[in-house]
Amino acid sequence: MDKDIETLSTLAPAIVLVKPQLGENIGMVARAMLNNGLTDLRLVAPRDGWPNAAADSASSGALNKGVTVTLYGETAQAVEDMQYVLATTARPRDMIKEVYTPEAAIDETCAQALSGGNRTAILFGGERSGLENEDIALSNAIITAPLNPAFTSLNLAQAVLMIGYEWSKRIYGAQVMPTEFKKGDTPFARREEIDGLITRLTEELDAHHFFRSEGLKPTVTRNLTNMFSRMQITAQEVNTFHGIISALTGQKPPRSDHKGE
Amino acid sequence: MDKDIETLSTLAPAIVLVKPQLGENIGMVARAMLNNGLTDLRLVAPRDGWPNAAADSASSGALNKGVTVTLYGETAQAVEDMQYVLATTARPRDMIKEVYTPEAAIDETCAQALSGGNRTAILFGGERSGLENEDIALSNAIITAPLNPAFTSLNLAQAVLMIGYEWSKRIYGAQVMPTEFKKGDTPFARREEIDGLITRLTEELDAHHFFRSEGLKPTVTRNLTNMFSRMQITAQEVNTFHGIISALTGQKPPRSDHKGE
Repeated sequence: MDKDIETLSTLAPAIVLVKPQLGENIGMVARAMLNNGLTDLRLVAPRDGWPNAAADSASSGALNKGVTVTLYGETAQAVEDMQYVLATTARPRDMIKEVYTPEAAIDETCAQALSGGNRTAILFGGERSGLENEDIALSNAIITAPLNPAFTSLNLAQAVLMIGYEWSKRIYGAQVMPTEFKKGDTPFARREEIDGLITRLTEELDAHHFFRSEGLKPTVTRNLTNMFSRMQITAQEVNTFHGIISALTGQKPPRSDHKGE
Repeated sequence: MDKDIETLSTLAPAIVLVKPQLGENIGMVARAMLNNGLTDLRLVAPRDGWPNAAADSASSGALNKGVTVTLYGETAQAVEDMQYVLATTARPRDMIKEVYTPEAAIDETCAQALSGGNRTAILFGGERSGLENEDIALSNAIITAPLNPAFTSLNLAQAVLMIGYEWSKRIYGAQVMPTEFKKGDTPFARREEIDGLITRLTEELDAHHFFRSEGLKPTVTRNLTNMFSRMQITAQEVNTFHGIISALTGQKPPRSDHKGE
């Protein structure tokens, strides 16, 4: 898998903005791209020309830290060196094309890269009217994002992020460690430490007449055990609880209960 | 599944912005939220107060079309009515918390809603410094996005979109029809129409001395068949090809070859 990620990184998709209008949006696209490990930005006939000061400022440095910008006059030129082209559009078209979600589109982009060494370009239309039919005709497939049908007006940089994020998941997802706990400096408590805490707590509760009937004790103990088990308590936190019990009962902490390396 | 989506829609997560600074970013957050079907926006001590004209303008109407804004003085007040709280942060913290990707976080949000009727709040820090440790301490778990480690500076609205999009996938994903073809008004060609086209084409090629040797014919025919099968051609497109052949060979289109309802 690490080798796959290496291969994918060398074949990351190009982002092609066709007739974008606001420099600020181009800058925010660059920022979103670099967040997601994408660096090849291609502009087809940007309305306000290039370079663009508003783009620089909105990019938060992305245009100086890795994103390269290339200018083209026509969409066809911008995708000349690409083997696979995807067009983003929310509106239904009369053309017969496969329609992908962003997730499925990036699955296909990765498959193209890994099986054939193919590079993908992803086309985004300008702010006002999106892609033209001519741009869509030269694409292999369409990407349509799952959006609230009552409010589909998606900002250009947001559209790029939605798709870039799916790429990012595949390249950088492993580093988040989805179901792992982020450990501090202290290890989790051992069972004997947890059980020692629960034993002491129920004894103190007993001594303070907490249990109205003897029958309640096993139930409460079970509930406490479940609660302390569920919270993935650390050895240090067990110490804290011992301190709390000691304070509330006016004792010194019985250190033998919670030590033991 | 439709019933699940209905349930989820009534328990959509609240987005809590803690000490946000720029009105423009708040507006873009509202826009991203409504794109993804989220409508409960809570602001904790926004720097420039509320209402905010820059937010209105950047929201592209989202603040008038469904997103409600509620103001709070403290994070704890903003999440008072919530059963589950998630904190977004890129920086490692010393606290022991489960760390989710946006995808896993929304899985958990959905599970909380469907199994317990629990509502989730998702906390986002301000532009400058993110969430404070006090905000993270009252959260059940952390969300960390998979980002390019060399450029993790994520715009506030982009952070909201990344997580909102995972929600949107679950609520609106079905309407994209991932692997379906988007059909126009014409149906796909029947096999006999495709085979009729290939037969005519190879006959014309034969008549025009295309095949240098007789042995080439089966190979070329197989390649043509494969190509026309792969492209999911429509009946209308078969007609177009017949027209092309007729034009190139100076004939009238032989209508009997491509008709047949």
